[in-house]
Amino acid sequence: MLRLIRQSVTKRYIQQWEKHLKGFSTVAQAEPQKPDIKTSVPGPKTTALLKELSSLQQAGSVQLFADYDKCIGNYFVDADGNTFLDSFTQISSVPVGYNHPALLAAFEDKHSLRALVNRPALGVFPAVDWPQKLRSVLMSVAPRGLDAVSTMMCGSCSNENAYKNVFMWYRLKERGGKLDFTPEEMASCMVNQPPGSPNLSILSFKGSFHGRTFGALSTTRSKPIHKLDCPSFDWPVAPFPRYKYPLNQFKSENHAEDNKCLEQVADAIEKYKTKGRPVAGVIVEPIQSEGGDYEASPYFFQELQKLCQNSGAALIIDEVQTGCGPTGKMWCYEHFELPAPPDVLTFSKKMLTGGFYFKLAERPSHPYRVFNTWMGDPGKLILLEKVLQVIKNENLLALVNETGKVLKDGLHKLESEFPQVIDSVRGRGTFLAFNATDTKCRDKIVADLKTNGVLGGACGETSVRLRPALVFAPKHAAIYLDILRKTLREI
Amino acid sequence: MLRLIRQSVTKRYIQQWEKHLKGFSTVAQAEPQKPDIKTSVPGPKTTALLKELSSLQQAGSVQLFADYDKCIGNYFVDADGNTFLDSFTQISSVPVGYNHPALLAAFEDKHSLRALVNRPALGVFPAVDWPQKLRSVLMSVAPRGLDAVSTMMCGSCSNENAYKNVFMWYRLKERGGKLDFTPEEMASCMVNQPPGSPNLSILSFKGSFHGRTFGALSTTRSKPIHKLDCPSFDWPVAPFPRYKYPLNQFKSENHAEDNKCLEQVADAIEKYKTKGRPVAGVIVEPIQSEGGDYEASPYFFQELQKLCQNSGAALIIDEVQTGCGPTGKMWCYEHFELPAPPDVLTFSKKMLTGGFYFKLAERPSHPYRVFNTWMGDPGKLILLEKVLQVIKNENLLALVNETGKVLKDGLHKLESEFPQVIDSVRGRGTFLAFNATDTKCRDKIVADLKTNGVLGGACGETSVRLRPALVFAPKHAAIYLDILRKTLREI
Repeated sequence: MLRLIRQSVTKRYIQQWEKHLKGFSTVAQAEPQKPDIKTSVPGPKTTALLKELSSLQQAGSVQLFADYDKCIGNYFVDADGNTFLDSFTQISSVPVGYNHPALLAAFEDKHSLRALVNRPALGVFPAVDWPQKLRSVLMSVAPRGLDAVSTMMCGSCSNENAYKNVFMWYRLKERGGKLDFTPEEMASCMVNQPPGSPNLSILSFKGSFHGRTFGALSTTRSKPIHKLDCPSFDWPVAPFPRYKYPLNQFKSENHAEDNKCLEQVADAIEKYKTKGRPVAGVIVEPIQSEGGDYEASPYFFQELQKLCQNSGAALIIDEVQTGCGPTGKMWCYEHFELPAPPDVLTFSKKMLTGGFYFKLAERPSHPYRVFNTWMGDPGKLILLEKVLQVIKNENLLALVNETGKVLKDGLHKLESEFPQVIDSVRGRGTFLAFNATDTKCRDKIVADLKTNGVLGGACGETSVRLRPALVFAPKHAAIYLDILRKTLREI
Repeated sequence: MLRLIRQSVTKRYIQQWEKHLKGFSTVAQAEPQKPDIKTSVPGPKTTALLKELSSLQQAGSVQLFADYDKCIGNYFVDADGNTFLDSFTQISSVPVGYNHPALLAAFEDKHSLRALVNRPALGVFPAVDWPQKLRSVLMSVAPRGLDAVSTMMCGSCSNENAYKNVFMWYRLKERGGKLDFTPEEMASCMVNQPPGSPNLSILSFKGSFHGRTFGALSTTRSKPIHKLDCPSFDWPVAPFPRYKYPLNQFKSENHAEDNKCLEQVADAIEKYKTKGRPVAGVIVEPIQSEGGDYEASPYFFQELQKLCQNSGAALIIDEVQTGCGPTGKMWCYEHFELPAPPDVLTFSKKMLTGGFYFKLAERPSHPYRVFNTWMGDPGKLILLEKVLQVIKNENLLALVNETGKVLKDGLHKLESEFPQVIDSVRGRGTFLAFNATDTKCRDKIVADLKTNGVLGGACGETSVRLRPALVFAPKHAAIYLDILRKTLREI
């Protein structure tokens, strides 16, 4: 019975969406109807390629080799000709599906092609149209209250440079706004010692992931394998809420969990102040992703912001994975209705360019401080411009919300059907996850999904995460749910 | 008399080169004959654009806005229609000049266009042709003895990830090759403490520049403004030779300088071992660039390698600025005739993609340790493939050597003509520099060169650096030298 209702709801959504798509995108028409697995996974060609790649680098993380000439929309085609429905999309970094015609056409214009090929040092010789591009593309989706932006190369360096921005702003406050540096600061920083290289810190949360370069990695707290053997800054960590599901059955427990975590944030800030390593900034993901898709309530984030304000620390929201629409809003933190803007918001992945939004009033005091040769890549902004147009023209945030409902309803049904196997369905939009009973079971689900034609992602110890493109429609959700049901049945 | 000889030599080179170019590149024909400055520098349009950009970010480092539709070969055209001969090329990151037809044609092929647009998570789902691309493009110019390569995004993250690779290799040695981690290591790394986050260090040199993210920045020792207010690792620094010029007049002094610096490297390694922060790697630029274009002898590098071998530290050569031909060899360290390969060589800038070469035997023990979402960018490798073809087809390393001779001879003549203003002409290929009497004088030379139609770079306290593209021919050298003479005369 449940299944019939689900199917009927899904069908209605599919029809609506097909109608909606008509006239907009040629991708949906070109997509295959469903996954098609022709060989074992990995197939023989993939196995041979992996051997070849392993002769040049540590390639143990490689799952499949893609035939990008054949990938289309939500479908990924591998070296062996297998077609997968992609619910992971290159670790959540494909905004509008494979080979979207708008992106393929982006460099037909010679001006755009020259911007791609003549990559400038953006901090010194940007193109004539760069200020206008920043305004019309990046600032058109800027978080409310953040009036400045710096482009960067990737998520890690966006966070690294956001931290630098925050440290400089914090020290400027400590100097009472004085722009000069003392001779002692200038001499000591050259030998990596305070006061020039101050013992300031960034607080992050248990389970968080903020990147893998040394500053970012010092705030990453996801898994030992990400951190082992790398020197690290002595920076504080605090617990991030771990909720019980379903949320509406555990309201008071989860609220208590929020307060417990907030108390420990306050304690850590106090402890590191006493320790001589004051917290200049707090970085937080709106939904912890790599660490296991842990969400927190608007209340938690509102209170966290107050703690930051009271202690003089900047609040940095890391939207590298949540940003650009997958939660049904452009930025996930918009769900939290913070009374004031965060100080910094970092992005990458679906935004195609790295970077961070901030407040112009909190910019570095002098040039050449948050700086590098490339400072981003105009070619990526040209693609992002097309992506944002597609999101708008195809009304993709609405689609994410529609598809998200189908997916979440379907996952809830599956957790009722298979309560011994999966639970804790959660998330916003299509940015969803569920838990398996243990790591082994989770890994088997992800592996079997693949064999059954779905690329899925794991995160944390026991979670399966969904990270489809924004063009993942209810019809794709229905296929996903069918294959997941089949997979769970076989486990 | 000197001038007449110079002019005659230059003319001969120009004729040879024009002949050589014929049939290869259309760029040389399309270039203007000389710089053309129509407005004040910066002109009114540039000033207006700077104001606009400054409303969005700290833009104090921006010099000019480029009209990349009009830039061609060695010539840079700004927003106000001024045409400059470019001897700085986007901080040394334009390999074959602006708008090279081979690069403009790189994405005409639909397969390449799809590789650009469908940017994968290279560590998980690379394209079918990725292993072969790595081999045919990057490995075709791999330093002898380095059989592995990882692509990255930029110079900083190439160095950051090279350090991670080195730390992991060093700890693996300490564990006697054992692949398992102890429970204590796994627990301690999650709170950024040893033994999981070990107190290992990277030694770098006074005056060095290795990037601006926190790991890279801890090894950068160029200027206070690059480091101030950023927390830093307590890692050792040693002096890099400071030679007297001309080299052939100060052989014994400079040799003594080499030995003095080498002794201090050995001392620092010993001191940090005692201090509980052993040196796992030593990073060095073949020519210190940002820090002031300081060079060191093959003897210095050979002895440095011995010190590394004896102490068990990896030798990391940072060729981010020197790599890809400007010194007349593909990699500058080839000039040093090291008896064994370095452990790691990092690159970016003219290579268009970041990355590092290393030894497969020294790769990380497990996957997902040197990893990030993008791990580079296939679109950049497609451009690099074209660049390497152009370098080969147009015989650009030979051109660099020819032009380099013209430039260096010309600079030597100018330092004889203006001994009160410039001295210490030095460098290899077209990777050249000279000193001004002081910072103010140097800044005036660079500013006046610009007003006179030449974009030039500053480095260190008093140096002017030349970083032309590899297509900078003797005729461009002659124009550069004429304008520099004019500029020095007016000072």
